[in-house]
Amino acid sequence: MKRIFSFGLWTVMHRGGDPFGQPTRAPLDPLQAMSGLAAHGAQAFELHAEDLIPSGSPDAERDRLIRKARGLMEDVGIICVACGSDVFSDPVFRDGGLTSNEARVRRQAIARYKAAIDVGHLLDAPLFNIWGGRDGAEVDASRSPLDALKRLRDGFNELADYIARQGYNMRLSIEPKPNEPRGDLYLSTVGHTLGLIATLEQPDRVGVVLELAHAAMAGLNPAYEVAHALHAGKLFGIHLNGQRPLRFDQDLRFGGANLKDGFFVVKLLEEEVWPGPRSFDARPYRTTDGQGVWQFVEGCIRAYQILAEKVQQYHDDPEVQHLLAEIASWDTEEPDDAGGASAPRVFAYERLDHLVFEILMGTR
Amino acid sequence: MKRIFSFGLWTVMHRGGDPFGQPTRAPLDPLQAMSGLAAHGAQAFELHAEDLIPSGSPDAERDRLIRKARGLMEDVGIICVACGSDVFSDPVFRDGGLTSNEARVRRQAIARYKAAIDVGHLLDAPLFNIWGGRDGAEVDASRSPLDALKRLRDGFNELADYIARQGYNMRLSIEPKPNEPRGDLYLSTVGHTLGLIATLEQPDRVGVVLELAHAAMAGLNPAYEVAHALHAGKLFGIHLNGQRPLRFDQDLRFGGANLKDGFFVVKLLEEEVWPGPRSFDARPYRTTDGQGVWQFVEGCIRAYQILAEKVQQYHDDPEVQHLLAEIASWDTEEPDDAGGASAPRVFAYERLDHLVFEILMGTR
Amino acid sequence: MKRIFSFGLWTVMHRGGDPFGQPTRAPLDPLQAMSGLAAHGAQAFELHAEDLIPSGSPDAERDRLIRKARGLMEDVGIICVACGSDVFSDPVFRDGGLTSNEARVRRQAIARYKAAIDVGHLLDAPLFNIWGGRDGAEVDASRSPLDALKRLRDGFNELADYIARQGYNMRLSIEPKPNEPRGDLYLSTVGHTLGLIATLEQPDRVGVVLELAHAAMAGLNPAYEVAHALHAGKLFGIHLNGQRPLRFDQDLRFGGANLKDGFFVVKLLEEEVWPGPRSFDARPYRTTDGQGVWQFVEGCIRAYQILAEKVQQYHDDPEVQHLLAEIASWDTEEPDDAGGASAPRVFAYERLDHLVFEILMGTR
Amino acid sequence: MKRIFSFGLWTVMHRGGDPFGQPTRAPLDPLQAMSGLAAHGAQAFELHAEDLIPSGSPDAERDRLIRKARGLMEDVGIICVACGSDVFSDPVFRDGGLTSNEARVRRQAIARYKAAIDVGHLLDAPLFNIWGGRDGAEVDASRSPLDALKRLRDGFNELADYIARQGYNMRLSIEPKPNEPRGDLYLSTVGHTLGLIATLEQPDRVGVVLELAHAAMAGLNPAYEVAHALHAGKLFGIHLNGQRPLRFDQDLRFGGANLKDGFFVVKLLEEEVWPGPRSFDARPYRTTDGQGVWQFVEGCIRAYQILAEKVQQYHDDPEVQHLLAEIASWDTEEPDDAGGASAPRVFAYERLDHLVFEILMGTR
Repeated sequence: MKRIFSFGLWTVMHRGGDPFGQPTRAPLDPLQAMSGLAAHGAQAFELHAEDLIPSGSPDAERDRLIRKARGLMEDVGIICVACGSDVFSDPVFRDGGLTSNEARVRRQAIARYKAAIDVGHLLDAPLFNIWGGRDGAEVDASRSPLDALKRLRDGFNELADYIARQGYNMRLSIEPKPNEPRGDLYLSTVGHTLGLIATLEQPDRVGVVLELAHAAMAGLNPAYEVAHALHAGKLFGIHLNGQRPLRFDQDLRFGGANLKDGFFVVKLLEEEVWPGPRSFDARPYRTTDGQGVWQFVEGCIRAYQILAEKVQQYHDDPEVQHLLAEIASWDTEEPDDAGGASAPRVFAYERLDHLVFEILMGTR
Repeated sequence: MKRIFSFGLWTVMHRGGDPFGQPTRAPLDPLQAMSGLAAHGAQAFELHAEDLIPSGSPDAERDRLIRKARGLMEDVGIICVACGSDVFSDPVFRDGGLTSNEARVRRQAIARYKAAIDVGHLLDAPLFNIWGGRDGAEVDASRSPLDALKRLRDGFNELADYIARQGYNMRLSIEPKPNEPRGDLYLSTVGHTLGLIATLEQPDRVGVVLELAHAAMAGLNPAYEVAHALHAGKLFGIHLNGQRPLRFDQDLRFGGANLKDGFFVVKLLEEEVWPGPRSFDARPYRTTDGQGVWQFVEGCIRAYQILAEKVQQYHDDPEVQHLLAEIASWDTEEPDDAGGASAPRVFAYERLDHLVFEILMGTR
Repeated sequence: MKRIFSFGLWTVMHRGGDPFGQPTRAPLDPLQAMSGLAAHGAQAFELHAEDLIPSGSPDAERDRLIRKARGLMEDVGIICVACGSDVFSDPVFRDGGLTSNEARVRRQAIARYKAAIDVGHLLDAPLFNIWGGRDGAEVDASRSPLDALKRLRDGFNELADYIARQGYNMRLSIEPKPNEPRGDLYLSTVGHTLGLIATLEQPDRVGVVLELAHAAMAGLNPAYEVAHALHAGKLFGIHLNGQRPLRFDQDLRFGGANLKDGFFVVKLLEEEVWPGPRSFDARPYRTTDGQGVWQFVEGCIRAYQILAEKVQQYHDDPEVQHLLAEIASWDTEEPDDAGGASAPRVFAYERLDHLVFEILMGTR
Repeated sequence: MKRIFSFGLWTVMHRGGDPFGQPTRAPLDPLQAMSGLAAHGAQAFELHAEDLIPSGSPDAERDRLIRKARGLMEDVGIICVACGSDVFSDPVFRDGGLTSNEARVRRQAIARYKAAIDVGHLLDAPLFNIWGGRDGAEVDASRSPLDALKRLRDGFNELADYIARQGYNMRLSIEPKPNEPRGDLYLSTVGHTLGLIATLEQPDRVGVVLELAHAAMAGLNPAYEVAHALHAGKLFGIHLNGQRPLRFDQDLRFGGANLKDGFFVVKLLEEEVWPGPRSFDARPYRTTDGQGVWQFVEGCIRAYQILAEKVQQYHDDPEVQHLLAEIASWDTEEPDDAGGASAPRVFAYERLDHLVFEILMGTR
């Protein structure tokens, strides 16, 4: 399997600002982002429709921008693997998108998502991914969370139905996140998303995009999050990055933190031969300049490749093989063998865990 | 609706020990626990079968103990609303119960749960609740989390099937928790549990028991957790308690922490007229003596009653009513009204949130 | 003691934007902020010099703006209790202020702080408070943390010396915070700040400003933070607000979260008759409009007053008095009384903690 | 400098129990622990006096046990680098040791520490380390945190004075920790400990022992904690281990988690040529048996050695050298060079951080 590496356009377009600091980098336009990504090792990108096409653009303008983008994509050799929509930054959504208390705003959110679905279709994106950055609450008294979940369910049903009726060759996914700087989100984890999907009208059409930093925000083991999505047959995408604990969504360069967690995520993806793109949703440091952005891109890709090689080394290591074979033998033994006066089981996990450390460090 | 208040027997039987301290209270036997609970305001209890019947007791001994318990229950007027099993404290489960790498241990876990299901049936418990305190891993290399989820699925299927084949009038529930002191658990939140249930053979027979402290361990909004379970029709039970952030499962007295979160949980349960028992899974402080344990019991119940009265006050407050009516009006307005040159929406959430504070403080 | 209530000008001037959302409120100029605060219950304000005087303004412009401000302050009856400087938002500080790897930037930071100290002096501010929002690192390899601490020490020494040499009647304080969205800060808690102050040339001139949300970000008990500062004689200021766990600096309205923690902070301040201003460093919700900002202001003040009344009720409650007297008696008893065959001590903390709950709820 | 590796005797004597599980390993006596440590790479140990000598032993018994221990220590070639005391597990300390509300219990705590100081002296321990596992509160109403700090200050003063008056060649240290399973501790971090030490009568005699897991519990950057202690000249000891976020004190094998944080801690210790013992305060997994305990010991030591080699590689790497030289040049440049029309500074931190990743992975 040839791995596809992908980045959100917004990752390299991010200008380095934060709640206490002005932007530190010059703007990068979406076409520059695409060609830069292609030149530095990526085969694909994700985008918010609004990254490319200003919200409210007339159809003609939209089509012109898409033609231009498709031309460039062909020239530089990059494809679009997922499209989403920015239903969070406009103040009209300050009380929510699909969950707003205002019926008219919910309709606006739906309209915005549908327009973005069209854009995704025009870019041949096989996936439309929803991250509802305002679908939560700063003030719990403002609505019942049960109403919020019903509104999300209705919204997802309508969007899944739209894609089906349009005949688009596109799947729908939802990306959870525990909280925003000041609001708790209703779909906090992969688990909650899988739970909600099970209540949809067409659950088979809808899956999950998992982001490592979002899992880490809730202190969850990210490899277990991947496992839950795989077990349900719903890992439609993954956002790879790094995150230090007890901090808001940091979107650090993949390899920049959580090295061991990163290894176990890569291990599971590789062992299960997961076919999706390895997509990065990270941002350069605020000290990084316009050139450094591409080192950031190369760093993410290189980190995945290194960790994937470590997975191979792990499976090739004779001592690891021996220990795993022993563990596997416990799963198949006959009941009779296990009962009676058998010697107490020796669990060599301590050693196995140390071998993981040494393989990660490159000292085996 | 008459509220049923319930406690785990283990809550009042807990002797105050912790990883760095020996027990501080004398043992309390399960029958004393039942009569003490009944005498201090509880109408019901939960138990681990092993709280009453030592694991491995012959059937005759089991039946004798159950007869004795049922006699006492009738005398003091208390019922059993949920049964579980201690598939965590015995060292045989040190590598897991349903998820152990040893097939023979998984069979032991299943056998233990089935025996406990029988005990629950004999006590007329309408619910069997599984909290798999060892169904996680200290060492991620020890098994694939995907295998672990499959084992959990198989185990839950077998137990649900057992209950059905025995013809017991009993539902099955699963209680998630993010982690143990040194291991990450595979079923970390209500969401993950709902997601897994959707993959079972008989999903309709299986639900969730939500514990507030467990939700708080992952920093999740506990009222949203309740909403997810309600939305899926799967809130089979609730464990009320308190928890300070960034600490391990504290099981503080309900009302001892998270006052505002507690209010919104009670608000949702009362607004939805949830019919289940208000069950407490908390422990007295280690400084509390044998008499203080009953003040602890009364404190939990009183805290719920006070918060439920606050919910009533909230709905009766004219200013709150006015603000909620205004919010509700946004949900029904016609599209035409909303468009055009309408004045910008005023969100009075800041005031509403302050009114919650004043109602909680009793100053309205 | 008449309590002084104070707000940072930046709190009401904040326009509701966040990393994923554009501002939701119209700009408010600093003079409007001052008069609005005075009109809604505040007697004082804090500011960053840059809130009032654009960085780089010539002296004449500075003096003109200060004259105007002082005129208004006298008119509306509000005083300035603390001044600081924005040494974080300008990209020049993207690698740090006092801790930048660039000597020239460190000099710029010092110059900026000195100019702001002058502004504070001209506004009769008795305190200059430094929060070094960039004095941390995204990339730990970028500098040794030991060098960073030496740079902070040198910087604080120079600023304390400047204030002394100018003869300003002004104390210097430092406000710690564990981390920024993507960088760890070197002065993370009250404790670390006290530790660093002990290494300064003139430690007596320098103290701490404690923010509740910053303490909560590290999961620390905020009342203990206050106690540490008081014990060292260094509580030069306090920033009151609310914060939910596992989230970045939320700066919620005081009373909007952490009710019990808030009570114990107020209790300690009131019991120790701490003479400083009760200063709020919080922000309105992003749904709050320009009018709601003043409800936010009133809400903060009202929350403090309510909690202070609760402290009084606590001390007036006969059962609380009885329990506290019993506890106090243990501290004075003679060794002989305690030894021998005395009955085991009964710790009524469970009850005492429940009484705190009831007093907070207004049900005693 | 020859590195000394050390372990707490309690680390290998720990039997694998936890709040929900019985012990999984047979007991190991303290002399077996010493000889086992010596046989598996350690040159030193720490202990709680009670690990070797049951509390309350008569002097003759104490001296007999110490003679036996010293004989063995000489035979196997191991020394004692720090002694402490278990002033937490006995129920008499359930309300605190040095901070108990009972004057008689505070005296008991002092007496216990003094007896343990004597034991440390008899074992030639150059350090007496206090970790006050009960010096916090479950119930904040039980005492003022200000009184608690005064009691700690008085206790530390008395113990430092005792060591001085006895003429022992021994320093005193304090080990902070943010919280216990159900109580918040008063000395939560290195910073708070440094702050309190500055208020002692003989601050020069007292320092800090820093534990990585304890720092991680508060989400603090452990290398910054080390830097604070070094900056104050007070890093008297270090406890190396691993910790996953949002969990209680896990004491994982060094190298078992936090790989990058571990690297930066080792980097600082090695760069500063810190002369103290590299001491491990970790515990084997509960699945580890009596033999595996020694693999655990070897794993901790090996992890430190590997990370120390990585530090050397980092400094030897030409590209790293080039980047660090460039950074260093910014610190020395003349003001004139920096001003004017100089090109914007390029911060190559993104690349530097990636080089750290590659060096850690062994791929450079």
